[in-house]
Amino acid sequence: MISKNQLKLLRALGQKKQRKALGLFLVQGEKNVLELASSTLTVKHVFATADFLEQNQATLERFECIEASLDDLTKASTLVSNNAAIAVVEIPTFEAPVAQGMMIALDGVQDPGNLGTIIRVADWYGIKHIVASQDCADPYNPKTISATMGSFGRVQVHQLDLPNYLEQASLPVYGAFLEGESVHKTEFAAEGILLMGSESHGIRAQAAAFVTDKITIPAFGGAESLNVAMATGIILDNMRRQHS
Amino acid sequence: MISKNQLKLLRALGQKKQRKALGLFLVQGEKNVLELASSTLTVKHVFATADFLEQNQATLERFECIEASLDDLTKASTLVSNNAAIAVVEIPTFEAPVAQGMMIALDGVQDPGNLGTIIRVADWYGIKHIVASQDCADPYNPKTISATMGSFGRVQVHQLDLPNYLEQASLPVYGAFLEGESVHKTEFAAEGILLMGSESHGIRAQAAAFVTDKITIPAFGGAESLNVAMATGIILDNMRRQHS
Repeated sequence: MISKNQLKLLRALGQKKQRKALGLFLVQGEKNVLELASSTLTVKHVFATADFLEQNQATLERFECIEASLDDLTKASTLVSNNAAIAVVEIPTFEAPVAQGMMIALDGVQDPGNLGTIIRVADWYGIKHIVASQDCADPYNPKTISATMGSFGRVQVHQLDLPNYLEQASLPVYGAFLEGESVHKTEFAAEGILLMGSESHGIRAQAAAFVTDKITIPAFGGAESLNVAMATGIILDNMRRQHS
Repeated sequence: MISKNQLKLLRALGQKKQRKALGLFLVQGEKNVLELASSTLTVKHVFATADFLEQNQATLERFECIEASLDDLTKASTLVSNNAAIAVVEIPTFEAPVAQGMMIALDGVQDPGNLGTIIRVADWYGIKHIVASQDCADPYNPKTISATMGSFGRVQVHQLDLPNYLEQASLPVYGAFLEGESVHKTEFAAEGILLMGSESHGIRAQAAAFVTDKITIPAFGGAESLNVAMATGIILDNMRRQHS
């Protein structure tokens, strides 16, 4: 059963301020909770239905599990869909990554769902680190975690002073602009940073100053733009086809 | 002002059954409504704020426009975000397309947001026709229209008997399967149908029977799958790089 205090905690973790104050975040949904078993994250509690706990006994054995009804879990959840499992997890602390290999940089990407989708596609293409401006969506927002479909455990998102980071990095910075060179013709270096801006503002001047190569996805039809997560995936595919 | 009967109509059009019975659908949001001006769709009414109507007088001149407050529009909207404009539009009728050029086929893609994102990326890559199984999301669902970001006017979605359509089509059918050939190595024909299944069920046997080439997006990391809209965009990019 979920106690009153536990319910209060789960509700509180829907808010960024509380996540920051408590150093905790929520992982919701069966697939995402099961992914925790193979991650290095520190899990405080797993709340889940009796069925889920029984079916996944071996996977969950090192976690403190608390049985709850689907009804109570749904009430406690910050997401709309039914949840057979919710975990409370410690927000990890890690150093800003050394700029090496293939990386993603995000400037002002504020939609949590987009950020989560970018984390998922980054994981698909084997990207381990995303650096993000301070005004990007919170990587620990429940909507972000949910959209990662489990990839949150394999990709680190670092919120930092983005222009400063790009200035220090000794890697090519590929910035996505509508007027850039076609990614079908770009010769990508084996190591580099893919810089994406928000759909509404693009890459802002402060970060754009450190772009070494402007690139674009060639358009063949009438759409004016692509969703930022979609564009990130398509460009990563173009980078990886040259450097797998 | 939005009259009581008009409000009733707007609300009704949130439901598929009512859209079908009335032959009408909703186009919401400023960008989507403005796209109507360059489409061949028949617009019944545009409800919009005084500001919006004034700013876009020339674009909207051939439509019957009704002024409404942002408050009333938000109440009438089926979407969460604020809407300065809502249009009521006739659902067009068109014949099933002849199988030619590059096309997309969708088998059981039930999420309206995914369908809308697929329409948008199809438009980016110059695809004019999507054929979809009867159990796909309704192309006139407000969430679908919203996610197309205006591309709904340039891409036709045809719901039909998909296996039958694929059987009749004399084009290669590229089916996305996890065990297919890498799209980085596939030689795509200049004309062909890209067949995508749902994230949970993949391409079902009845449609899979007509696949001529199994393809896949090569994975480099830990993610088990990609969102169906993302995968569609990445594969289209791979097709178009060979045939622009």
